[in-house]
Amino acid sequence: MLKEVIANQKNYQPGLSTDCVIFGFHDNQLKVLLIKTKFSEDWALPGGFVLLDEGIDEAAVHVLKGRTGLEGIFLRQFATFGQANRNSIEKSQQVLDFYGISSEEGQWFLNRFVTIGYYALVDFLKAVPQPEGKNEIVEWIDCNAVPSLIVDLKEIFDKALETLRMELNQVPVGYNLLPEKFTIPELQKLYETILGRQLDRRNFLRKITSIGILTKLDEKKSNVAHKAPNLYSFDKDRYEEVLKIGLHQGW
Amino acid sequence: MLKEVIANQKNYQPGLSTDCVIFGFHDNQLKVLLIKTKFSEDWALPGGFVLLDEGIDEAAVHVLKGRTGLEGIFLRQFATFGQANRNSIEKSQQVLDFYGISSEEGQWFLNRFVTIGYYALVDFLKAVPQPEGKNEIVEWIDCNAVPSLIVDLKEIFDKALETLRMELNQVPVGYNLLPEKFTIPELQKLYETILGRQLDRRNFLRKITSIGILTKLDEKKSNVAHKAPNLYSFDKDRYEEVLKIGLHQGW
Repeated sequence: MLKEVIANQKNYQPGLSTDCVIFGFHDNQLKVLLIKTKFSEDWALPGGFVLLDEGIDEAAVHVLKGRTGLEGIFLRQFATFGQANRNSIEKSQQVLDFYGISSEEGQWFLNRFVTIGYYALVDFLKAVPQPEGKNEIVEWIDCNAVPSLIVDLKEIFDKALETLRMELNQVPVGYNLLPEKFTIPELQKLYETILGRQLDRRNFLRKITSIGILTKLDEKKSNVAHKAPNLYSFDKDRYEEVLKIGLHQGW
Repeated sequence: MLKEVIANQKNYQPGLSTDCVIFGFHDNQLKVLLIKTKFSEDWALPGGFVLLDEGIDEAAVHVLKGRTGLEGIFLRQFATFGQANRNSIEKSQQVLDFYGISSEEGQWFLNRFVTIGYYALVDFLKAVPQPEGKNEIVEWIDCNAVPSLIVDLKEIFDKALETLRMELNQVPVGYNLLPEKFTIPELQKLYETILGRQLDRRNFLRKITSIGILTKLDEKKSNVAHKAPNLYSFDKDRYEEVLKIGLHQGW
């Protein structure tokens, strides 16, 4: 991808890239989609560049589609990274090395780049991780065990996770990370995983119910020995409303 | 400013600008600092460009200092704007016209620009609005009466205000917008002004007190006929702590 972009550099906005932190939830783990190539011991976030006639959000949507096969998924810009030293020539060289590109060939990329960070919440079971070419692997990695990332991508990942934690109180993120039907304990586990700590069961139930976005279904979870817990789904209309109101309700 | 940047374009990151929404609070009004020139009926936000050896946050700090004379003030990146059509040649021309620059002279600026939005909270009484040259005026305008702004600056202003509203629940923004000593009714008025609606007095008192960032002073407001209200200040240490915790406390 980077190779083709460099070959067509005239069609791209100079000095601008996107990095995508794609979250999924599975086996009670919050996971992030990472890339590794055969050229490096370290990993990278999926990312891309911005065509001159393409919006920055569209550019991120293309990265997401390319890496997961999914469209119409929850995607949010969370910060732009542009410290003066974030990509010195040495650091840019790290990225070129990662993709197996020589510095002559990659001249364009040795300029200063500012990168726009997006995070996405995807349904783990629907996403199909897609490498670009045979030198890459793309994997879901537990957010608690993120390996060494090239350049400043760890900082970008950390900021995405921090933003996700903050937005837990603003938007019902569970909607995008859980399957259509779920139990309250599963929802609580998701919140605990994102926040990185245990929550009181009764307090959680009270708070999550008070948002008014849950619909109790006339169905119980199957394959459970006894006292099968009730299944719930999100009330889509109410969810959209809460999204609009955001935090205003707090006061 | 734009004229000098264009003359030194080689020193600047191509296609990247900053726009600053500078908020102040006075006379029970939330105000924003806007610029007008003699070349246009419309107004603009203070903004700038990014030197190649300067971080994006530093660039915004320079704009703030240049426009208010203040340093070390609360400044936060809130979004990056980069729709493909946000600066068509016609729209870029609007900006050149605003600053009285011809299209020949302003060629560099007719390229596509992505802009990073920052908002700042300043002490109204300490800020000294500073025009650049004699063709400009810089004024505090009531946020409820923002005049027509050039290009997409209204969208950027709206997003800043929306973010400020959201962050009311995350960070005690009053700290930056109020004088050192204030009364609870003054603090409530600030919140009401930002949120654009009235709040219940007792609920507000309960919520703001529960954050634990207020210190009740052994002093009452002077120049008040009778039943002078108590003065308060913010507990700086506790404030920093709450900033770190952010919304985590919500669950």
